Order: sequence, then C-alpha cells, then structure tokens
Amino acid sequence: MSSLLIKNGTILTMDPSQTVVNGDIYIEDGIIMEIPSSKTDADQVIDASGNLVLPGFVQVHVHLNQTLFRGLADDMDVVDWLKKRIWPLEQAHSLSSVYASARLSILELLRSGTTTVVTLETMNHTEAVFQAAEEMGIRAVCGNAIMDRWEAGTEMKGENTDLALAKSLDLLDRFHGKSNNRIQYAFCPRGTRNATDDLWQEVGRIARENNARIHTHAAENKAQTDLLSEYGGSEVLYLDKMGVLGENLILAHAIWLSEEEHDLIASTGTHVAHCPSANLKLASGFAPIPIMLEKGINVAVGADGAPCNNNLDAFLEMRLAALIHKPLFGPKCMPAQKVLEMITLGGARAAGLEQDIGSIEVGKKADLILLNQAVPHAYPLLGSDPASRVVYEHQSRDVDTVIIDGNVILQNGHLVGMDEEDILVQSELERTKLLERLAEPIKSEMLL
Amino acid sequence: MSSLLIKNGTILTMDPSQTVVNGDIYIEDGIIMEIPSSKTDADQVIDASGNLVLPGFVQVHVHLNQTLFRGLADDMDVVDWLKKRIWPLEQAHSLSSVYASARLSILELLRSGTTTVVTLETMNHTEAVFQAAEEMGIRAVCGNAIMDRWEAGTEMKGENTDLALAKSLDLLDRFHGKSNNRIQYAFCPRGTRNATDDLWQEVGRIARENNARIHTHAAENKAQTDLLSEYGGSEVLYLDKMGVLGENLILAHAIWLSEEEHDLIASTGTHVAHCPSANLKLASGFAPIPIMLEKGINVAVGADGAPCNNNLDAFLEMRLAALIHKPLFGPKCMPAQKVLEMITLGGARAAGLEQDIGSIEVGKKADLILLNQAVPHAYPLLGSDPASRVVYEHQSRDVDTVIIDGNVILQNGHLVGMDEEDILVQSELERTKLLERLAEPIKSEMLL
Repeated sequence: MSSLLIKNGTILTMDPSQTVVNGDIYIEDGIIMEIPSSKTDADQVIDASGNLVLPGFVQVHVHLNQTLFRGLADDMDVVDWLKKRIWPLEQAHSLSSVYASARLSILELLRSGTTTVVTLETMNHTEAVFQAAEEMGIRAVCGNAIMDRWEAGTEMKGENTDLALAKSLDLLDRFHGKSNNRIQYAFCPRGTRNATDDLWQEVGRIARENNARIHTHAAENKAQTDLLSEYGGSEVLYLDKMGVLGENLILAHAIWLSEEEHDLIASTGTHVAHCPSANLKLASGFAPIPIMLEKGINVAVGADGAPCNNNLDAFLEMRLAALIHKPLFGPKCMPAQKVLEMITLGGARAAGLEQDIGSIEVGKKADLILLNQAVPHAYPLLGSDPASRVVYEHQSRDVDTVIIDGNVILQNGHLVGMDEEDILVQSELERTKLLERLAEPIKSEMLL
Repeated sequence: MSSLLIKNGTILTMDPSQTVVNGDIYIEDGIIMEIPSSKTDADQVIDASGNLVLPGFVQVHVHLNQTLFRGLADDMDVVDWLKKRIWPLEQAHSLSSVYASARLSILELLRSGTTTVVTLETMNHTEAVFQAAEEMGIRAVCGNAIMDRWEAGTEMKGENTDLALAKSLDLLDRFHGKSNNRIQYAFCPRGTRNATDDLWQEVGRIARENNARIHTHAAENKAQTDLLSEYGGSEVLYLDKMGVLGENLILAHAIWLSEEEHDLIASTGTHVAHCPSANLKLASGFAPIPIMLEKGINVAVGADGAPCNNNLDAFLEMRLAALIHKPLFGPKCMPAQKVLEMITLGGARAAGLEQDIGSIEVGKKADLILLNQAVPHAYPLLGSDPASRVVYEHQSRDVDTVIIDGNVILQNGHLVGMDEEDILVQSELERTKLLERLAEPIKSEMLL
C-alpha cells in the first residue's frame, strides 16, 4: 500500500455540485480515499498551499506521431496540407521517429496539465506510441489509423482490409488494458471517406465485443463533406447506416452537420471532440458547439496535431473554446465552468472513463494537477471565480504538479525521473532523419 | 557611454528585407550600432545562444488601470459589463489602486515580451500610470480617458469640458517626452459617443500642435454603433467631420465599419488597433482585418483590458490574430510573418515611433527580447520558419530577456532589481480596498 496526501490546496472537485473546497486530499494506491481529509501523514506529502487542485485535463483528439512535423505545414489549405505535407511525412515515419514524436508530445501534454490523451496515429509503428505512453505515465487511449481506401487526389496509400484489421487486432491484444488499465486501445478508421463499408461494419462489431472506443474524423472540412455525394453529403447518416454511432464513438471536429445529424449524435450518445485551434488554423470553420451542448451532446476537447495547431496545450484549447463562439452565440454561450467541464468530465465520458476520472471524488483514480495561483497574469484573486481563472487566465506555465494514478509524474513543472533535454534532442535528430527519407520534390519544398 | 553586446542569437530583424541572421548585436547608449557585429566585448555581454532575438512587441490598446478588475466581469454582455462592472470599478479607483494596477500590468506585459504599450486610462489618477511606467522601464504612451458626456443608460459621470481639457494639458505638460522620450502622453477621448463636438475638435487641434497621439475606441459593438443615429450610424464619418482622422489617431477595435469608412481610414493614414481576445470575449464580433490590410491600413495589436481578455499577453493576441480570420478569409489570409509585423512595426507606426523601434536596425533604439527556443512546445526546429514559431508555438513562458532603451529590464524571465512578489501583494491589497469602496448593491453582487 502506498499513500499520498495533498495538503492545503483550493480544490475544484468538478463533482456534480461543483464543490470548491480548501483542504487536503488523501490517496491510497492511486485511489482518492478522503476529501477533505483529516489525515496528518502519508508516505508522500505534497504541500499545495497557494495552488488550485483540479482533475487532470482529458484531450480526446490528438495525433502524437505528427508532433515531429510541427511548423512544417503552416498557412496552407487542407488539400495541400494533406497532400504535400501530412501524407508524405506520415509515410516517412519509422518506429524510432514515431517513438521520439510520442515522447515529445507527452512531455508537452503533461506540462499543460493533460493527464489523459485519446490519440489517432498513423498506419504503422503505433506500438511506439503505446510504449512512450506506458513509460511516461500518461493515461492514453491510442489507435493506429485504419485506411483501406486511397485518399482521392493524393498519394496516400490505403491498406488491404484484412491486413488493416489484423494489425488493429494485434495492437488491441498487446496493449488494451495494460498498466493497470491506464493504457487502452481504440479503433481509428481515419475518416468516413478513408474506410470501406466492410471495414466500418467490422470495426463496429469488434469494438463493441472488446469494450473499446472508435475514434475518427467527421465533417471537418466543408468541401470534403460536400464531396461525399455517395453518402448524400452526410457523414453522420453514413456512420449510422454502418451501425457505429453510439456511446463508444468519438467524432473529431463535427463542424458541417445538419440538425438531423445533431439529433442523431445526441440520441445515440455519440461524443464530439471539439478542436478549436485546428479548426481555425486549417480554415475549416466554427463548429456550432453551443447548439450541440443545447441538444445534450457530450462535447470534449482536443488539440489535434501539432502541424495544425501548433501546440498540444490544454489551456490554449480551453481559452479558444470559451472565446470563439461568443461573437456568434452571445457572451454567455460558453461560460468558463462549462468549458472546464468539457475538458475534464466531458473528456472522461468520451474516453469511457467517467467512472474513474474527470472529477476529484472519493473512489475515483487520482489524476490531478496543481496550478500555481501566485502569478501576475491571474492576480489579483479576491472575488474572481477559480474556474474562470483556469479558463481565461492561467497558462501551462502555471502547472506545478501532475499526478496520474497517484504517481507524481511532474513536479515544479518538470518531469520526475526523466531527461527532458534528451526528449528534445532525440526529436530533432529523428526529424532530421525523417526529412532525409522524404522523396523529391516534397523534400526540397519543405526545407526551403 | 555604456555598451551592450548580445551574442550568438538568431536575430529576426523585421527589417524591410525580413532578414534573419545568426550573430551578434552591438548597442551603445541604448542605440543599435552594429548588426551583425564583430565586437568581442562590451560593458555588458549577454549570451543569446539558443535564443531567438526579436524586436520587442508593441501593444497599442491596453487599459492598465483595469488589471485590478481581472476576473470580475466574465461572461457578460457589454452593456452589463460597462454598467455593472467597469464604470463602478473605475470610479472607485484611488491613486494607489491605479498605481498597483499599472505595476501589475507592466509586470505581465514585460513577461510577454511587450516593450511598448499604448494605454487608455480612467478619468483620474493617470499620473500613477506614468509613474509606474517610468519606474519599471517600459516604453509607454499613456493618457487619461476624456469624457464630457454621460454614457447613456449607465451611471458613468462625464466631466466638464474645460476641466477635462485642463487635466489633459497638465498631464501632457508633466509627462510627454520624459525619460529620454520613453514616456509620452496621448489624448484619449474615450469613444466617439463619450465626447462632445467641441472637445473632439479641440483635442484634434492640441494633439497636432504638440505632436501627440489621439487614442480612442471606435465601432466596437454593433448595437452601440447603430445607436449613434446622430452620426448617421458612422463613427468614422463623424470623426472625419471633427477633423481628427489622420496619422496621429489610433482607433481601437474598428469592427463595424463600411467600405467607405475603410477607405477613409486608409486614405488618412489612421491606425487600427486589433484586439482579438476582447472582441471575442465581449461577443463584439470579428474585425475584418484581412480586408483592412488589403486596403493598406496599418493594423496593430492590443490586449485591451484584463476584464475582457483576461490576460495582457502578446503571444495570446498574436496567436488569435493569426487564427480567427482564417475560417472567414481562408488559410493564407494572415500569415505568421504578417502578424509578427503587426505587433512590431505596425505597433511602432501606430505609436508614431517607427523611426525608433519596431525592428532591429542600426540607428534604432535597442528594444529587444530574447526567446528561449529549447522548449518542448516549439520543438523540433529543423525546417520550420522562426516567425511562424513565434506566432503559433511560443508562449510568454519562453521570454528569457527583455531589453528596453538598451537596459536589461527582465532576465531569466524575472524583473531585474524589482520585487515581483510585492507587486502581487500590493495588487491584492488594493483590490480588497477598492471593492470595499464600492456602493451596494454592486459590491455584494460582485463578491457573490
């Protein structure tokens, strides 16, 4: 038995009563046992005086393998972005470049207070993402991109349907439920247009059987969505026909949807991953999140990939999610408390982990972060709402401590027992080698 | 004579050729003398290895006195925001509360790499803002709000026209050109609707005579703009009639303007301050910045006040300015280099300081910042554009050093020779006293 006591914090529990309490949290073997606690000692004691204590953030749509491409695809339209950058770069990945990219991503995610990440990777080498997540202590639900159709107009190669499925089942078998259930597998058909009917239906069946998530892109780009005339222009109606809508499905972006599709998402309990930075940077559009919330849809948040963001920072996404909808839906449409709920409980629900994480409650796993309040950009404090401070004022620089499964992963803003510099150096080295592997003329164009 | 040598940086000069050069900068008595320099020694030598060296950021629309109200006015519409929050709070200010607010603001501004700030303060106690700026070493163009009309529907008291002018002339006399011209005065009629015709015309005349800026709000809120039926609904046409459009005028927000007004702004050389966070948070709208840039209008950037942001962070404003226009105008409408130009040279032009600051060129004043590149959220580096990294990836946490007029104001991310903790403590104390001074029921409502 190992115990942890977090003393004197201002705790935003995110429990159903939205309790905010000053006091201590007592944890045993990674499980929250008492709050507020009157215990005076434990194996490890952390002084949280002057800190806000929050449930760790959950980001539900991120591509860890793409972090190695950060800054190589700016100010481009989405067709060029895919064709000239993302597809060639992903295809040039090796096991070691994916591993370096995942480690760099997880470092950045942890430093922004993200304790759980749901990721969609490339077709190959996804075992390296699982390895990095296992080693670095983050909670992760990861999957390889499944594509058994060619992307029209690009050089992206699809895979044989049986091979794609076999690879997925192998990863499911090796990683789903590992490290005390901290690591899980999700099936990731890349997008509506990237998988055949057979594959969609088979994935739906196997995912249900194995209690696994399905994670895909939908209705991100208007032109792409309109082009899907074979689906009557409706990606959600198509997914319904394939039988995959439901509580184990996460749809990333969900910008260009009809009211009928919103209703279908709501009635099936399908989850939406809102990616504000990416939707802006790729000029995809403004996802009508206030309408979806009104319909009762569970909306969570994700940074998407570094090439379309260019960060993986939970605070930047929260701030944007709170701000960008106001000119369209009014100043009260996205209160700070709602945004904070989206990135904690909303994420936990989308990941299928709401029994375990997303709030600080007795019996839940201890995935917590400590935020330093004594910072110029959040001062003065008297009379302001802590949730509002987190969403509108705090930044990732304020993340002092990150705890996952009761383990202290980050302290004083730095990884515990890991060499951060080595992660940066390896990422630079692997990027250099990856760019060397690119074919011309893409390579010269990218290194202009 | 004092000399400063900044060695081994990657210098984004922002000169007309957009030169990026690895090397040294030699400075004498606050003036850039050589770049790249072959000097080997100086009175002070700073090692900038691994850092980007940039012109300091210029923010041209900020209310330093409002930072004391941070987090007290979230998720409200603009009428309530003014009536129930900003007007009562500003009227409760004392000399010492304005001073504490200005010091806290300047600390936050410096930490985000802002070396010049153009501010619009409240009607009283603006001498405290000048004092804080003088003491803390920031370059500042400040002015008291001038209001000789009552704000319709609110309790905001205006002033007698002669008194307002006399107060302004006194501040002009005491502060304009102080500290080696680092401190300047600007005339600040609060908004089109807040000053009489007489006052506008008189301010126009005196500002021209004294080579001073005029800084005001215009076309921020559609309902407010539409209500100005006496001006035919056009704030810019009104200002034209008053004879104040021109190269010494900064218009903050400029959201709800006609094509005719855009043309008038362009032809008169009037400057626009783009405030993306504030425009979103108050649900004011999306200022059509790409259209204004196309017309040749000089657009600069500002964080506005903490109650409508809630930060004063140049990086957050740059990132938003680059992102939010893309869904409306396409992915290439606001390239990173353009945004970086807006917040350096654009700001310098708006402030009337383009001969002195805004780029790193021989003969200009040494207002520079050093950004640490060895950070997870900007890695890896090979092949990515430094300007793009600054706009899309870096954060204020990466600001290592800030130099203004050749003086090192911030080093290792902290103020040189100033007690940061005292600034926080004083701000908390002054907020407590200010809230005590509020009348009921506003006071109880705010402290719910």
